[in-house]
Amino acid sequence: MKRLEDYRGIVSDVIITDLHRRASLLHDRHVVHMNSTAQGGGVAEMLYALVPLMNDVGVDAGWRVLVGSDDFFGVTKKFHNGLQGDPVNLTDNKKRLYVQANESFSQYNHISRHDAVIIHDPQPLPIIRFYKKRQPWIWRCHIDLTEPDPGLWEFLKGYIMRYDLMIVSHERYLRPDLTVEQRVINPAIDPLNQKNIALPERTVMRYMKRHHIPLDKPLITQVSRFDKWKDPEGVVEVFKRVREKVDCRLVLAGNMATDDPEGLAIYERVRKRAGSLVASGDIIFLLGASDVAINALQRVSSVVLQKSLREGFGLTVSEAMWKGTPVVAGAVGGIPLQIVDGESGFLVDPTDLEQTADRVVTLLKDPALASAMAEAGVEHVREHFLVTRLLGHWLELLAELTPRR
Amino acid sequence: MKRLEDYRGIVSDVIITDLHRRASLLHDRHVVHMNSTAQGGGVAEMLYALVPLMNDVGVDAGWRVLVGSDDFFGVTKKFHNGLQGDPVNLTDNKKRLYVQANESFSQYNHISRHDAVIIHDPQPLPIIRFYKKRQPWIWRCHIDLTEPDPGLWEFLKGYIMRYDLMIVSHERYLRPDLTVEQRVINPAIDPLNQKNIALPERTVMRYMKRHHIPLDKPLITQVSRFDKWKDPEGVVEVFKRVREKVDCRLVLAGNMATDDPEGLAIYERVRKRAGSLVASGDIIFLLGASDVAINALQRVSSVVLQKSLREGFGLTVSEAMWKGTPVVAGAVGGIPLQIVDGESGFLVDPTDLEQTADRVVTLLKDPALASAMAEAGVEHVREHFLVTRLLGHWLELLAELTPRR
Repeated sequence: MKRLEDYRGIVSDVIITDLHRRASLLHDRHVVHMNSTAQGGGVAEMLYALVPLMNDVGVDAGWRVLVGSDDFFGVTKKFHNGLQGDPVNLTDNKKRLYVQANESFSQYNHISRHDAVIIHDPQPLPIIRFYKKRQPWIWRCHIDLTEPDPGLWEFLKGYIMRYDLMIVSHERYLRPDLTVEQRVINPAIDPLNQKNIALPERTVMRYMKRHHIPLDKPLITQVSRFDKWKDPEGVVEVFKRVREKVDCRLVLAGNMATDDPEGLAIYERVRKRAGSLVASGDIIFLLGASDVAINALQRVSSVVLQKSLREGFGLTVSEAMWKGTPVVAGAVGGIPLQIVDGESGFLVDPTDLEQTADRVVTLLKDPALASAMAEAGVEHVREHFLVTRLLGHWLELLAELTPRR
Repeated sequence: MKRLEDYRGIVSDVIITDLHRRASLLHDRHVVHMNSTAQGGGVAEMLYALVPLMNDVGVDAGWRVLVGSDDFFGVTKKFHNGLQGDPVNLTDNKKRLYVQANESFSQYNHISRHDAVIIHDPQPLPIIRFYKKRQPWIWRCHIDLTEPDPGLWEFLKGYIMRYDLMIVSHERYLRPDLTVEQRVINPAIDPLNQKNIALPERTVMRYMKRHHIPLDKPLITQVSRFDKWKDPEGVVEVFKRVREKVDCRLVLAGNMATDDPEGLAIYERVRKRAGSLVASGDIIFLLGASDVAINALQRVSSVVLQKSLREGFGLTVSEAMWKGTPVVAGAVGGIPLQIVDGESGFLVDPTDLEQTADRVVTLLKDPALASAMAEAGVEHVREHFLVTRLLGHWLELLAELTPRR
């Protein structure tokens, strides 16, 4: 059972006490979150931390998961990508599938006496139309909204306008063309889930052995899907430059979305570019590893790279920093909020291979600097990117939106 | 929005009226279903039909979906297979993960004034421990329980004993070693979902064209995962024998579970066995097709084969029969309930290739017989395996378990 008290020691007593104090204003409140798991494992991961904590501190917070047909999820995947800028062919058939699945969901997903309803991401957005609205409704959008497909955005706006509040992850995702109130809440990581929890040295070693990752040379690691925006090919190029200065290995850890033929193609291109470095063991691919294995890998690496060309928010950066590993990352998405350049890590222009390689070499050659930056990184994440901070934001917001009756 | 009235014309007015009459005894009742989507797409598919219909006829029926970590779903997958007979290494760690995920789920999945709670399959089974029990709890197990791993079964029994009633899909799955009351409810198909809904001829043709399936010769089809129990290799052998008598093509339509390396190996073995018949176009593999495409394929086939060596229930047989296509199927699992041998299809010993091929040839050579059997098959499914019958069973059961207060 998730308890706020388990976070004591990770964050200060002042913060824990303050969270309980804020929650005490909400002890008779009943709220409900709705999302879909089919996309965005990150959203489910955050709810998996946030919702139980809300309950632990005394808010009656439910969590409902949208169920739908493959066709529905096919459409919402296109909408998800469309909100991030891909062109969408918005047919009547797609609109109908999208809205009808929400209507159907509303048929067996009963809300009544709830004090607030929180809808995550576009999949369940239109469901608001199918209830008698008796409470504030919040649309929490976890997606980069800087340049959505215009037709899709116009269509979705019709539903967004029914909400009392929209929340985005980054200031840059605020939409000037919306009349609905908007706020920013940065996402956060859970220091106690399997991806982030402290691991004994022997566990770390066991996982490295199991996955055949030798520790004789420093490791540089990037943890990312094989996706063009994560630029794994560029990572290989950076590694080649780094390797001219310092002997080390590169680990590319990631998954391929099983329904993503593009991912497989990118993976094959990366392997080709890695060439003989794969056979020599200098570039290691780690596919489909468990959360704990990734956790161990981030801990044992000398530098974690996040050479993304684009990011929704880029929380993997905080995940790596939390483990006390220095990070070199592209200054895109929410990454500049997570790294103070030169203090808690290095920000780079991700298209600049020389600069990126140079920062990695600096960290590999100067262990004192690396360790100081890593330490600053841990503190920055502790202050800004843990789920306790996120819980505080939600408690504050709910107190404001659902005043005591 | 799913409505019982949409099923009028598919089943008789007498049945529709009777369902409304039964439901009228339950108009103040509030029940909730819980399941996990991560396994058993079939269960979600059935709930997707059943739960909205329950609401339409006036029962307040909720549906909650269990969310868990990959680790949890890894364990429950092993448990699922273990209930079906695979040996399970039941470690304390597995037990802990299983129970803790349920405890966590109970934290944000609130039940209170519900008149009955219906838990589907083993994933959420232990959740009963984490509520104050105020109503009847029903465990609906959709799995073949004839020879579960003994250690696992002993462990799960501790939770099953807390329930008021257990429901299985087939008489043979009733457990003599349980003191809890047990009943049988056969599963059912939804004639209005994308897999089964009537399709205009031109839609059928469009899908065949899109998937490059020629219709110049009769088609024999098996729709199944590439799984040893579905015996796709045996299907190829049967086809070779059939082809000596009647010129025809074989379509093997299926998916591979993405986390199932065994599936890929079986697929490769099947391709090898198919040999030059793939290049000649006589054996066609259709992978990852949509529900509508499978629907179209079943409609256009001359014979559907289900040469399973083992089945949980084998509802694909009813799905094919419902389309007016004659079926030749192994006499395993729930298949003998669906086919009256020689009347509404042919039952075979699935290890007997000659017999199986012989029945297929009989149907291909005698169109009048094929059409009479297909017609009898449609009526058999209409009477016994549509979701309307399932709804009736649930309404009856709920009326009995939750007497009017």
